[in-house]
Amino acid sequence: MTDQPAYIASIGTALPGAPIDNEELAKRFGIDAGWIEVFIGNRTRHFAVDLDSGEVRHTLADLAARAGGRALAASGVAPEDIGFIVMGTATPDSLMPATVNLVADQLGLDHLPTYQLQSGCAGALQALDLGRTLIASGTHKAGLVLGGDVCTKHLPLGEDFAGLAPSELVNFVLFGDGAGAAVLTAEPAGARLSLVRVLNRLVGLGREPGQTVEWFGIADRDSGRQALKEDYKAIESAVPVMASEILWELLDDQGWSQSELHYLLPPQLSVRMTERIVEELNMSSATEISCVADTGNTSNALPFMQMSLLVDRIEPGQKAIGIAVESSKWIKAGFALEKV
Amino acid sequence: MTDQPAYIASIGTALPGAPIDNEELAKRFGIDAGWIEVFIGNRTRHFAVDLDSGEVRHTLADLAARAGGRALAASGVAPEDIGFIVMGTATPDSLMPATVNLVADQLGLDHLPTYQLQSGCAGALQALDLGRTLIASGTHKAGLVLGGDVCTKHLPLGEDFAGLAPSELVNFVLFGDGAGAAVLTAEPAGARLSLVRVLNRLVGLGREPGQTVEWFGIADRDSGRQALKEDYKAIESAVPVMASEILWELLDDQGWSQSELHYLLPPQLSVRMTERIVEELNMSSATEISCVADTGNTSNALPFMQMSLLVDRIEPGQKAIGIAVESSKWIKAGFALEKV
Repeated sequence: MTDQPAYIASIGTALPGAPIDNEELAKRFGIDAGWIEVFIGNRTRHFAVDLDSGEVRHTLADLAARAGGRALAASGVAPEDIGFIVMGTATPDSLMPATVNLVADQLGLDHLPTYQLQSGCAGALQALDLGRTLIASGTHKAGLVLGGDVCTKHLPLGEDFAGLAPSELVNFVLFGDGAGAAVLTAEPAGARLSLVRVLNRLVGLGREPGQTVEWFGIADRDSGRQALKEDYKAIESAVPVMASEILWELLDDQGWSQSELHYLLPPQLSVRMTERIVEELNMSSATEISCVADTGNTSNALPFMQMSLLVDRIEPGQKAIGIAVESSKWIKAGFALEKV
Repeated sequence: MTDQPAYIASIGTALPGAPIDNEELAKRFGIDAGWIEVFIGNRTRHFAVDLDSGEVRHTLADLAARAGGRALAASGVAPEDIGFIVMGTATPDSLMPATVNLVADQLGLDHLPTYQLQSGCAGALQALDLGRTLIASGTHKAGLVLGGDVCTKHLPLGEDFAGLAPSELVNFVLFGDGAGAAVLTAEPAGARLSLVRVLNRLVGLGREPGQTVEWFGIADRDSGRQALKEDYKAIESAVPVMASEILWELLDDQGWSQSELHYLLPPQLSVRMTERIVEELNMSSATEISCVADTGNTSNALPFMQMSLLVDRIEPGQKAIGIAVESSKWIKAGFALEKV
């Protein structure tokens, strides 16, 4: 929100269990592995829920604590200098306690403000946005920012797949579970990535949601309603355009020319969608940093997974832009990084 | 988070339907109205869910939009000067879209950052905290802060009450639904309440949750698990002590003496608990501002309902402190106000 930067000192990520490949997925759902390869393009993904029993094996709190612990260990920041925790997720373990507070417990962090932002694919960036604002307030030396989702707990994994509509089946091949974390600092430390700007803007007025995730209360848990619903046509047509607008706004804001951008972290619904988006963004001089082929769309974990690939490659003076689009009620989100 | 104040220009609130008195409640649940009067003390509450059918009649988005619209109308702030929306709730309508974005839609607000904080009784204060930090960042002239809950959708209202345990029945007589809103400004406007400090601190390390609210996913919607659970003994023993610590920390921070405090907005689980807490706080010179007798515990709406009573009474130069305790994972929250 302000022009004062915060710095990313380290990134940590966590994925549940072993990767599940298309053969295994196809066999379980009675579909064709070639169809996944051709139309989706993702090769593997990790599920927090057991594919056979539908049982939740990894909670979001567990995954986020693991990612957070890794980021803290890599940051060189003392735990007592962590002044806040912010977490972005669409899929909390419970409504209360907020999952962020269970993560704090696992990490041994206490006596600090915590914030849990409820959001779809913009949640990680909203969390970075809030983390940056808190650092800029001058009150904190450092803070922990988390993002993650366990989408599979909203999928009917224990049910009979023969009865599922294609619009439901596609969710099994697009998503993966996971969590990510970043330690933010007021002064350059560790990875020395300056978080020069975060964009976070609702643009959904009067537009139908592209994605919904229901909770089931007492009143409707026997209603047979579908938990996770998507309007893929709306998403496919809106996301590339919004991604392009986000990219150009961030370049403009920073006064960066197209040729100055070294790395591009595009939105990642699937390999095929990412290809289309990257083509439309037309930034041939920038290196694409993608992970969706291996992880699936991990929602609020994904920007951290992209950044974990970025920190190993980016050199001092190089610039990167990350883009995320929230299609549940249409939010433009993005961030600009520079290694100092 | 910073020492720069934000100002509350106006407050708006919304309650669903007609008040439900103890006679009506007792008759519906087959319990004794005198028991409610003696042990709880609340006289009425408003339910978003129809008491007979269990049907949800008012969504959280509808209530928050009504409260937000009232606050905006009373603020004198032009809609185009609203730079952000922050909402605190424990009970969103869905997981996605975030309820705050549906409220934005109803209010005609767009092209601005929105944040939805997932939290129990500290959510309203976390939202005020974040709103204040955003104002202090210098980027915004004004913003809308919302808080509210529809707890009753987590209660088995459509079921047979004879089979309910006392620990479940007590939830029906404690809670009420509602929403509240405040317009925050960078310069004094409208009600001219300076929000000089917001405290928001997790203190739950290693402590068992005092309250849990489950969502029900596909995996467990037929499990028969109880959605809302509370450890009333833990809450009854911890909350008065924590409330006292919050009050004294806020007084200390501001350098305010006990006699300088004109108004006290205590936490409000029930009339009887509030009486005990206020007695323990021992601030006889301050006027208590309570609403729980009429509204029940409206969770994240309640601080706004207290503030709506305060704005009509507080005179320039007078000081007020509000206190909230989140018992799901134990968060200390509070705020200090001064009319300028």
